[in-house]
Amino acid sequence: MRWVLPDHIQDALPSEAHQLETLRRRLLDAFRVRGYHLVMPPLLEYLDSLTTGAGQDLKLRTFQLVDQLSGRTMGVRADMTPQVTRIDAHLLNHRGVSRLCYCGSVLHTLPSTLTATREPLQLGAELYGHAGIEADVEILRLLAEVMRLAEVPASRIDISHVGLFHALAARAGLVPGREEELFDLLQAKDVPALRTMLADAAEPVRAALLALPDLYGGPEVLERAAACLPRDEEITVLLDELRQLAGVLADLPISFDLSDLRGYHYHSGIVFAAYGAESPAALALGGRYDRVGEAFGRARPAVGFSLDLRELVWHLPAPLAHPGAVLAPWVGDDAELAAEVAALRAHGEIVVTALPGHQGTWNEAGCDRQLVRRDGRWAIVPLQGE
Amino acid sequence: MRWVLPDHIQDALPSEAHQLETLRRRLLDAFRVRGYHLVMPPLLEYLDSLTTGAGQDLKLRTFQLVDQLSGRTMGVRADMTPQVTRIDAHLLNHRGVSRLCYCGSVLHTLPSTLTATREPLQLGAELYGHAGIEADVEILRLLAEVMRLAEVPASRIDISHVGLFHALAARAGLVPGREEELFDLLQAKDVPALRTMLADAAEPVRAALLALPDLYGGPEVLERAAACLPRDEEITVLLDELRQLAGVLADLPISFDLSDLRGYHYHSGIVFAAYGAESPAALALGGRYDRVGEAFGRARPAVGFSLDLRELVWHLPAPLAHPGAVLAPWVGDDAELAAEVAALRAHGEIVVTALPGHQGTWNEAGCDRQLVRRDGRWAIVPLQGE
Repeated sequence: MRWVLPDHIQDALPSEAHQLETLRRRLLDAFRVRGYHLVMPPLLEYLDSLTTGAGQDLKLRTFQLVDQLSGRTMGVRADMTPQVTRIDAHLLNHRGVSRLCYCGSVLHTLPSTLTATREPLQLGAELYGHAGIEADVEILRLLAEVMRLAEVPASRIDISHVGLFHALAARAGLVPGREEELFDLLQAKDVPALRTMLADAAEPVRAALLALPDLYGGPEVLERAAACLPRDEEITVLLDELRQLAGVLADLPISFDLSDLRGYHYHSGIVFAAYGAESPAALALGGRYDRVGEAFGRARPAVGFSLDLRELVWHLPAPLAHPGAVLAPWVGDDAELAAEVAALRAHGEIVVTALPGHQGTWNEAGCDRQLVRRDGRWAIVPLQGE
Repeated sequence: MRWVLPDHIQDALPSEAHQLETLRRRLLDAFRVRGYHLVMPPLLEYLDSLTTGAGQDLKLRTFQLVDQLSGRTMGVRADMTPQVTRIDAHLLNHRGVSRLCYCGSVLHTLPSTLTATREPLQLGAELYGHAGIEADVEILRLLAEVMRLAEVPASRIDISHVGLFHALAARAGLVPGREEELFDLLQAKDVPALRTMLADAAEPVRAALLALPDLYGGPEVLERAAACLPRDEEITVLLDELRQLAGVLADLPISFDLSDLRGYHYHSGIVFAAYGAESPAALALGGRYDRVGEAFGRARPAVGFSLDLRELVWHLPAPLAHPGAVLAPWVGDDAELAAEVAALRAHGEIVVTALPGHQGTWNEAGCDRQLVRRDGRWAIVPLQGE
């Protein structure tokens, strides 16, 4: 059966494709009027460029291909953020801030969840060159605006800080290489396994790491964190950063979840995840990743977010309306009719011309009205006789 | 050097990406108002679905991957037309006409020419379910309109008919399997090699096949063809079909090239190629392919065309204008400024907010004007002091 698609791969048929295209344009327009320049990196790159700075998980999720021209191994991108970072670091060479946005398909060898697609349509925005909190604020406000425009307003934007984890992990005296395991246990909030792993760790770091999974909720979490995390300068500075964000963004549904650091191994500072009212899974992920550009010759401060437009469309509370079409007679060499049809189309009306011999199929083609000749003029009336 | 891309693979940086996006929207809108529904088939399918009905050339150009979920061989699409045909044949199940359009990246293992990309951005429209000439007329008019909208008006649309080739090849008494070789020689207009190959073929077919490479030019070519091709019913019907098209489309720059059949092995009827004023290579290709749907359970009449949007952008006589941006002060908690910036953006103006500390980089960010406070009001003035 030649029409069967691989598992976790799907067509977007007209209704879904219309919604994807509508949101794609709406969100890219929101980026555009804020000065974010669209870039389109390629689907294929040499594997080592694609997986620079990324974790092992991203490497395993990248499809590999042999380049018949060079004999080298290429990959199909599984994430566009490192590509956009390459463009900022190596090609644009801006002295000041670069604002970039993108929308394109990525492929994953395996789906990330039981229901996930292996071909997300990744859309995102990245701000390079500004280390200050203003960039974090701009990106978090943009994320909230994007979700509002997508008609899935953020019910919650959870913020955390990778720096807190690194500061505590460095003090825990772990055997080298076990940091990743600690990261995964925190991510899973698996406290019993954490207790076992940290049995020999010194206080107060052991208690702090065990407390992390409970440090989630509104901005008051930051006060609880200050009370139970070690009071050294590094940690105080990081908590202050989060406190500032909570203050400036008090009008957004900001919350904190200090053990939720996501699988984005290239992040270096704040990380965040946005949720819709009805989605148990995050719809958008982002954060700061100030060191990824290094591999491309130029480390720059960087903060951004991305989302899967397909996932967003699947979570729309109601499908976006698809306007109905007007059926027009076959134009042939009727110049007056041709002009009428052209004028309607120029106003954005969908006009389908009736090819001879297909009576009775106009509803199927999306028509709900028709263009008819009445009293010597063309008029649009409801579609009759179907 | 991690920033080097594979040969024949490229980034679209902001200026080019802006042009691709502008044309993408303009052309998809032209399809939309004519009742063409957008579909988005996947990048990946099982290999046998992707290469159904396609020639050996397309199979060799398709990247192959192993599906870790099923163990089967998948391909990355090298052409979207068979995918759209699968959607029409198997998923939409329309009784009447389906009009479908699409725009997406395809990948080729090897570039088709010395300068071609291996990642064309394929955009096209297909009309299913109508065998009559009205569908050919609609698609050819749509092609001409698309090139006008893309600001590369067609200087020439060459039409041919695969049926003519098949009718003559069937009468030539070739050893089975040599039809493809004959096809390639005609495509290359290699008359000496044709003479050798056809040395033993009977007249009048031999003379007709040798005449084919010379049968190109305006509609008068059809009269020359009638004089030198065998006068049987099949060939007369095919030439009549072309003559009718020439009549109905007399306002378009239609010409004929009866040996130019393109590499699209799945075509069954008319085929055509559109050229811009300055392009020696065709910018769009299309034709009729009434039998491809069979493999997906339902053969339907089909005609359509597609083009590479990247190629089209490279052939633009002048780049599409990229509007300049307005620089606004960092908004902070200035509600009046925030409202002013939001109003400008709602009108489509690009407004970049100045993050602190980046003076002197506003030109680089695309700003040519700035928002300043004058006499108690916000005003837009030319950008000063850079």
